[in-house]
Amino acid sequence: MPKRYPPEQLFDFTVAVFRHFEVPTEDARLAATVLQSADLRGIDSHGVARLASYADFLGRGRINPRPNISVVRESPSTATVDGDNGLGLVVGPKANEIAMDKAASAGSGWVSVRNTNHYGIAGWYVLEALKRDLIGWSMTNTTKFVAPLWGARRMLGTNPIAIAFPADREPPIVIDMATSAVAYGKIEIALRAEKPIPEGWAIDARGEPTTDPAAMIEGGAMLPLGSDRERGGHKGYALAVMVDVLSAVLSGANWGPFAPPFALRQEIPTRSVGKGIGHFFGALRIDAFIDKDEFKRQIDDLIRTLRTTRPAPGTSGPLIPGDPERAAEAIRRREGIPLVGPVIEELHDISRQTGIPL
Amino acid sequence: MPKRYPPEQLFDFTVAVFRHFEVPTEDARLAATVLQSADLRGIDSHGVARLASYADFLGRGRINPRPNISVVRESPSTATVDGDNGLGLVVGPKANEIAMDKAASAGSGWVSVRNTNHYGIAGWYVLEALKRDLIGWSMTNTTKFVAPLWGARRMLGTNPIAIAFPADREPPIVIDMATSAVAYGKIEIALRAEKPIPEGWAIDARGEPTTDPAAMIEGGAMLPLGSDRERGGHKGYALAVMVDVLSAVLSGANWGPFAPPFALRQEIPTRSVGKGIGHFFGALRIDAFIDKDEFKRQIDDLIRTLRTTRPAPGTSGPLIPGDPERAAEAIRRREGIPLVGPVIEELHDISRQTGIPL
Repeated sequence: MPKRYPPEQLFDFTVAVFRHFEVPTEDARLAATVLQSADLRGIDSHGVARLASYADFLGRGRINPRPNISVVRESPSTATVDGDNGLGLVVGPKANEIAMDKAASAGSGWVSVRNTNHYGIAGWYVLEALKRDLIGWSMTNTTKFVAPLWGARRMLGTNPIAIAFPADREPPIVIDMATSAVAYGKIEIALRAEKPIPEGWAIDARGEPTTDPAAMIEGGAMLPLGSDRERGGHKGYALAVMVDVLSAVLSGANWGPFAPPFALRQEIPTRSVGKGIGHFFGALRIDAFIDKDEFKRQIDDLIRTLRTTRPAPGTSGPLIPGDPERAAEAIRRREGIPLVGPVIEELHDISRQTGIPL
Repeated sequence: MPKRYPPEQLFDFTVAVFRHFEVPTEDARLAATVLQSADLRGIDSHGVARLASYADFLGRGRINPRPNISVVRESPSTATVDGDNGLGLVVGPKANEIAMDKAASAGSGWVSVRNTNHYGIAGWYVLEALKRDLIGWSMTNTTKFVAPLWGARRMLGTNPIAIAFPADREPPIVIDMATSAVAYGKIEIALRAEKPIPEGWAIDARGEPTTDPAAMIEGGAMLPLGSDRERGGHKGYALAVMVDVLSAVLSGANWGPFAPPFALRQEIPTRSVGKGIGHFFGALRIDAFIDKDEFKRQIDDLIRTLRTTRPAPGTSGPLIPGDPERAAEAIRRREGIPLVGPVIEELHDISRQTGIPL
């Protein structure tokens, strides 16, 4: 059974851990905010469960705690940012700010980022855009996990895409999705529960479809959204390539199978083709296209229209993208963030190592 | 057996038909070019097979042959275009030009279009961007065909996304994909062949999964990319919503189930929430982010790296997005465009109706 922790307690611990590793206070608070948004929104794999990896990398000097984040090229509506190998949780928010500022002046802003690291959940960045009434976009490439359709090897990351649209009286539409058929966390959960995984999630080391989570984890690969040729696996693969190019090729980061890993146990790629991993942020100013209030009223109408769709048998009808995360956040802000045993143990390890009480 | 026609013959016929319906010569040639690109690239459902629909709509005054296409709002990097109910095959290219021109001056250009009609294949527009060494984006909403995940009704179009990246010595990466699990044309083909369709493509009128193509066509719906909850159907649904908002809500066009149909036999939506359907175009200037030659060399490297992926058993290994269409075009330019009996009959009908010899 998971044990629940007050969000504030985990936040303060996270800030203190980042500070212990020489991250400046303001950056530590920013990084903890991004990290905690994953725990609050129910994306457990991207929250405090990753703190040990961040601490490992900071402790070994593989992440720069005090980066000099710089704009290396820009135009009125675009910029390329070099994150100086800082925490993605700090580089990402600062690059996203640049995209939003460009949108304010030029109608849209697009920022490709190199020399950065794992940036948390893609969704956090587009929620920031919503605070400014912008349409926000966020993508990142990640360590290889996914096979291209018809490939037998991991070549691409789970490369998520997030985009959000503000509404008026309804909650916003918030899309945040990996371009793989499923999140890696679900395969790990099946392994621990000793249960098979559905067809369409993974292949084994020979490239054959598998329902054995261990066969994926031990040298197999995840499948792209769509899973196989018949059901559109070439489309999920194409989306992963798109994210890879916008985030990494356009910025000068490591793309495809050469994206560096974010766990000490993962192998270091054989080649370096750029700096760090890459992100891509975008922002569109709504009133550069249409009256903002009119847009929001139409989004309300679209949301209500979709909610009235006749439900498929055995379901309560379509959700709006963002509904599940919003529901998780309402519960977790009230009842605390549930952590499973192995994560709690990791936090205690960090506590012992740093002397910071949990 | 399909019969093959020289591309030039079909092109000249198409131009003459558009001209017959009062489309100015230059626009008729542009429209025929876009339409023919589908036939050349092997997307048979979007080429001359649609000419009868365009002729029907022009003949009944439901499409304006001489639109006054106007920019109704703009910023340095964005614009909203009103297509004056013109042919999407003419409005789309002109709006795409505006996006590309904005990219030249502001680093990026983004154009949302309302009051327009079916614009052919999404991929044509991004191929135009490649001619200018830009990264091109193209999306459009379409008549409802697809159910939201957990819905039992058609609420969204097949809402395609296209994006292209130029390479140096390799052919470019050209992504062009509907956000549904499969193209509607494949369901029609199964119906004609009296064959079942794979699971994950469609639901019947009650919202139950079906493998009967007739059950989808007669009141059922197509499924989004990912098909079901387990395999990520919520992701394809979210992408369809994204395309709908960028193309239609942002421009002031009809969104979701209210997008007008593009065939006389399809029902007219019960509500109008905007003007016509909507498109969304984007262009990014590569050297606004990174040295252009460096980018293209890296794309070459990425393409070659993906091609060397160990093949999955029974396959010849991963393709690069755009490969199948390029292969089709090479054959069809040489051997002609294959048309099936019903399409040839339709063209003869148009010929009789307009007096234009095929």
